[in-house]
Amino acid sequence: MNAVIDFIHTNRDRYVDELKAYLAIPSISALPEHAADVRQCAEWTAEEMRRIGLHDVVLHETPGHPIVYGEWLGAEGAPTILFYGHYDVQPVDPLDLWESPPFEATVRGGEIYARGAADDKGQVFMHFKAIEAHLRQTSKLPVNIKVVLEGEEEVGSDNLDAFINEHVELLAADVVVISDSPMFDRGVPSICYGLRGLTYFQIDLRGTKSDLHSGSFGGAVANPAFVLGQVLAQMKDRGGRVKIPGFYDAVRPLRDEERAEFQKLPFNEKQYRKVLGAPKLFGEKDYSTLERVWARPTFEVHGLLSGFTDDGAKTVIPAVAMAKVSMRLVPDQQPDVIAKLFEDYVRKVTPRTVELTVTRMHGGQPWMTDFDNPYVQAAARAVELGFGQRPVFNREGGSIPVVATFQQVLDLPSVLFGIGLPDEHAHAPNERLDLGNFHSGIIASAFLYDEIGRLSGEPAPTG
Amino acid sequence: MNAVIDFIHTNRDRYVDELKAYLAIPSISALPEHAADVRQCAEWTAEEMRRIGLHDVVLHETPGHPIVYGEWLGAEGAPTILFYGHYDVQPVDPLDLWESPPFEATVRGGEIYARGAADDKGQVFMHFKAIEAHLRQTSKLPVNIKVVLEGEEEVGSDNLDAFINEHVELLAADVVVISDSPMFDRGVPSICYGLRGLTYFQIDLRGTKSDLHSGSFGGAVANPAFVLGQVLAQMKDRGGRVKIPGFYDAVRPLRDEERAEFQKLPFNEKQYRKVLGAPKLFGEKDYSTLERVWARPTFEVHGLLSGFTDDGAKTVIPAVAMAKVSMRLVPDQQPDVIAKLFEDYVRKVTPRTVELTVTRMHGGQPWMTDFDNPYVQAAARAVELGFGQRPVFNREGGSIPVVATFQQVLDLPSVLFGIGLPDEHAHAPNERLDLGNFHSGIIASAFLYDEIGRLSGEPAPTG
Repeated sequence: MNAVIDFIHTNRDRYVDELKAYLAIPSISALPEHAADVRQCAEWTAEEMRRIGLHDVVLHETPGHPIVYGEWLGAEGAPTILFYGHYDVQPVDPLDLWESPPFEATVRGGEIYARGAADDKGQVFMHFKAIEAHLRQTSKLPVNIKVVLEGEEEVGSDNLDAFINEHVELLAADVVVISDSPMFDRGVPSICYGLRGLTYFQIDLRGTKSDLHSGSFGGAVANPAFVLGQVLAQMKDRGGRVKIPGFYDAVRPLRDEERAEFQKLPFNEKQYRKVLGAPKLFGEKDYSTLERVWARPTFEVHGLLSGFTDDGAKTVIPAVAMAKVSMRLVPDQQPDVIAKLFEDYVRKVTPRTVELTVTRMHGGQPWMTDFDNPYVQAAARAVELGFGQRPVFNREGGSIPVVATFQQVLDLPSVLFGIGLPDEHAHAPNERLDLGNFHSGIIASAFLYDEIGRLSGEPAPTG
Repeated sequence: MNAVIDFIHTNRDRYVDELKAYLAIPSISALPEHAADVRQCAEWTAEEMRRIGLHDVVLHETPGHPIVYGEWLGAEGAPTILFYGHYDVQPVDPLDLWESPPFEATVRGGEIYARGAADDKGQVFMHFKAIEAHLRQTSKLPVNIKVVLEGEEEVGSDNLDAFINEHVELLAADVVVISDSPMFDRGVPSICYGLRGLTYFQIDLRGTKSDLHSGSFGGAVANPAFVLGQVLAQMKDRGGRVKIPGFYDAVRPLRDEERAEFQKLPFNEKQYRKVLGAPKLFGEKDYSTLERVWARPTFEVHGLLSGFTDDGAKTVIPAVAMAKVSMRLVPDQQPDVIAKLFEDYVRKVTPRTVELTVTRMHGGQPWMTDFDNPYVQAAARAVELGFGQRPVFNREGGSIPVVATFQQVLDLPSVLFGIGLPDEHAHAPNERLDLGNFHSGIIASAFLYDEIGRLSGEPAPTG
């Protein structure tokens, strides 16, 4: 491993230059006008995979954006890693809040700023460079590896499940490795053993055929922008508890050991609040902030649009009002079950003075694994070797729905080994990645292959 | 009066041709590129006022568009009318929805289509032609008249109040006449005796410094888009009643006679609902639709904006959320008093988990006159003579702030004598004016001067 690690140290600057090129491609999967950029990014990704020495690299077409696949299967008798990541990125609006252009990666204060730096191109690239280092220095990997990178993670991975279901043979492996999450905190590397699920909706209300003058008609008809406020307000009580009947029925309670573990983590509420710039933290009572974010479900509003939103005043009763909302779910809530509960409840609380349309957008299963799983333990050792300290075990508030699919369809455990930082603005302006963590992450990834290579290729217990 | 009315009948076609020339001037006050057109229109208006026999016609310069003034003061001992109107027009977008060019007036089916046809050039011109008929046939008017026409009505009349305050002597009169509103319905001429006022705000909530990933942070902080819904929901109860403490304290109750008058009006709720395309009509219980719109205050939301509003799904906790809201006011609510009540209440109901900014945008006084006021009764007789039927007395849900200014600064009652129709698209494509109403309106205006001329010139009670 020394030669591999030396190679990584020597090539540090080159890695940053190459990453910049990767980050320059505006692969925004949500926006149709960027479809060609997403494809170009898939092709760039495939080319890079060939360059670092992976074999049989192909673009698998889907009804949406292509899935890039490549492999290296020369480590006979060793386990096989299925590495999953994504090459698509979030939209960049509001653009005027970016301190440097989102697709011109810029290094400031040891961090690289660009859309996709942390989520997920930077972390995918970290694995590419670890693979490259092994293959350049030893002409082999200590483990077999299959790489699957999708271009629709930021829009709900609509075509990924079908791809996995249709390629069970191709994707057969022993463990899934994913680096698409932050570590617990700067200087506190972590292995994630639990994720929240999601169910996402758009609510549209229509009051009248067209906008009305509020002088001539104010008082005669329901105002859909106001009704939307009323409907949303009924989703949570003033204590932050979701009011949808049955919503909490399947929630697996936090174990005492978990709560104790969480309490030991170096988490400073005051500092956390300050970094976010919130006047106060707020959530369900009887739970700590970490418990609320990792182990409790939520209801959130993501967007509101209605009527006149420019500068100035216009006295219009809007014809329509729109909200985007979602619920984060925890084990053992089922997205489909919760979606139905939500839809029924919205229909119930929306007055008949407006026309309601509820559109189910996407969803994902919550997930949790045992942290004494041997692959999880191998990852913990690799992180310790890369970052110089033992990782903590945490859960995550976000969703990586594919983790549940890998478990259900391929019967594979997942190791979530993320090196982003919690304040790296993954879906916001000024997304960034700490280059120190990027570098340590490449080393840790190189060790991860080594550590997993030492395990037998027998299927490990899942779950 | 016979000679005057004969003259009007004889000149019917000429009036339409002249009105077409007036409507050809694109005097869009909102658009800087039309500033020269607005001035040209002021000059055309002044020239026309001289042509019909008014004296001392001048353009009063303002920081914006000029105010045109002219007078005829030869009716010694008779009352003086202050006629107010405006020569500016609304923008014409979306242009592609116009069936004929907005500034090439076109007659179809007995209606003249053009921007400004109803609002307000057509109605101003109706008075010009009534004045002309009197002066041509009898060399005098039965009443003194002062004409004030502004060029900024469609952009908030920013310079009108100052002009009125600086010209109290010049504008001294007995009654204000305004023709800038629709009649109750086709075939139902009306005199408007009440208007609502307004107080308008923008509410901005900030939750955090920047947008957050709802997976990583959902549950830890308040979501300003959700809080905005909570705040708005507390503005009205489920019955449509405004919950701001003290909001209704100054509301002058509807008199039994008014309610009885409203009930007699030919108003078809079913048809009204159908035209608006609303699933149901909705408002405060114990009030009819007309009562709600004309005589009850409201709270309306005009715009909502927060977070992600494009197609698709983005899991963001928005940093900020914005709403535009206003309250329509009725006598004797004071805009400043209600504004303060609203601001206090918003501050009270907004949780301390978000930062609140409330911006007061603009306001206007509600207004009401007695319909047994002698000038109002004179106008009613004139309308009956012009249209062949007794007008109904109605109120209006909209605001004409200058009416309150005339009352406060000049201590003058107003007669709102409008001959537009409710569906004449005053601020929309295909604005039009019914030529039958235009012609009857000229006759009614001629009778209005005659009827008011018969009253003594003593100041009438205001209010």
